[in-house]
Amino acid sequence: MNSPPANFNPHLSVDCVIFGFDGDNLRVLLIKRKGRNTGGTKAGKYKLPGDLIHLKEDLEGAAKRVLAELTGLENIFLRQFSVFGNPNRTTNEEDHAWLEESSGIPISRVVTTAYYSLIRIDKSKTENENNHHASWHKVDELPNLVFDHNQIVEKGLATLRNEIRFEPICFELLPGKFTIRQIQTLYEVIFGKELDNRNFRKKLLKAKYIVPLNEKQKGVAHKPALYYSYNRNKYVETREDVLYYNF
Amino acid sequence: MNSPPANFNPHLSVDCVIFGFDGDNLRVLLIKRKGRNTGGTKAGKYKLPGDLIHLKEDLEGAAKRVLAELTGLENIFLRQFSVFGNPNRTTNEEDHAWLEESSGIPISRVVTTAYYSLIRIDKSKTENENNHHASWHKVDELPNLVFDHNQIVEKGLATLRNEIRFEPICFELLPGKFTIRQIQTLYEVIFGKELDNRNFRKKLLKAKYIVPLNEKQKGVAHKPALYYSYNRNKYVETREDVLYYNF
Repeated sequence: MNSPPANFNPHLSVDCVIFGFDGDNLRVLLIKRKGRNTGGTKAGKYKLPGDLIHLKEDLEGAAKRVLAELTGLENIFLRQFSVFGNPNRTTNEEDHAWLEESSGIPISRVVTTAYYSLIRIDKSKTENENNHHASWHKVDELPNLVFDHNQIVEKGLATLRNEIRFEPICFELLPGKFTIRQIQTLYEVIFGKELDNRNFRKKLLKAKYIVPLNEKQKGVAHKPALYYSYNRNKYVETREDVLYYNF
Repeated sequence: MNSPPANFNPHLSVDCVIFGFDGDNLRVLLIKRKGRNTGGTKAGKYKLPGDLIHLKEDLEGAAKRVLAELTGLENIFLRQFSVFGNPNRTTNEEDHAWLEESSGIPISRVVTTAYYSLIRIDKSKTENENNHHASWHKVDELPNLVFDHNQIVEKGLATLRNEIRFEPICFELLPGKFTIRQIQTLYEVIFGKELDNRNFRKKLLKAKYIVPLNEKQKGVAHKPALYYSYNRNKYVETREDVLYYNF
């Protein structure tokens, strides 16, 4: 986000819906808007992390750049899910003024390609987040975002809800070792409803790619639960699809 | 595709992978390239149906326009699946020359949003197709297409293969009444492998949205099969997901 203005394509941007799980809530990483060069007169509102793309950059490259600058992380889960190209999406006067000021170039119509990303909140680097005025917000209590960014989050969440039913992507959000209860809580907050313990456990333990460890929880008030880990090779090998199918 | 050049956004296009099923093969509708205004000096190659978008048009609107002009059909299945934005995707010299000639405007980088569509081949209007030099090609015997269009078809097919496992979209490709064998053939050509008759039938007949009709095939050499129809309301109501799950 430090590139000279002339390096930007004024018509194309990427925006990233970065999901994290804090053990109790699904959260989204938002940026409190500042002017890119000048500090900005139209700051204050929240936005998704994103940027105009560089002239010779491809879309996924731009999304990776935004993520790396913001979190200090590379090689994280990132998936394109939609394009937002309504001709009026950036015409709100205040937001448009901010866009021109922060990019330093005249902007007419911007089409944005939206990505969603799944990360471990505790792995994201606080220093990077602070430099970008970024913070984690509960997905069900989001403020009003600039442009169509609320709509982008909504569609990103719908995509996550759909894809997490068929692929073991939940492990991107969990620590390296976890209990079955932790997975269930994650599914419950993503779908916004309680699930039946017994059924959930039964379905989940069928999956060969969820491997019991020789280790239990320590220092908990209840009966300590067994830890498990995710074996990605086993998933790739067997292609067992359904983690927990019918919601 | 008859709009004055000044009306086009030179940076954004849509391309449509239009799938049809002829009873034996999955096919894709391709256009033999001609210059938009002049007849074109760089004709001859095949391309996907698509166009630069109009200045005040949204992406889906542009895709619908292309489809309606090409097939005479409206309200058909259309779904955005990916964006192709590699900075080099339109730099092939011959193809680039054609692009500038046919659009009548200077073109630098074009990002295209890709849609896939499912239609009944027999419903598409031959007159419209002929006007656009369009024809149906077997998906597994495609010619070399312009730009990255082969790659777009490939990703569209991968998307179809994925989504047809979870949603009853196959009926977009079938006639209003069909036999179970016809559905199976469609799945077999999409996945490129034979499926077990007995299992397929069993799974399929569980779905309440596949409704037996009081009618059998006529004039066939083998034992006439029962016709079925798809009840979309029943699907929406029950949200039964799995049509035929494990391939």
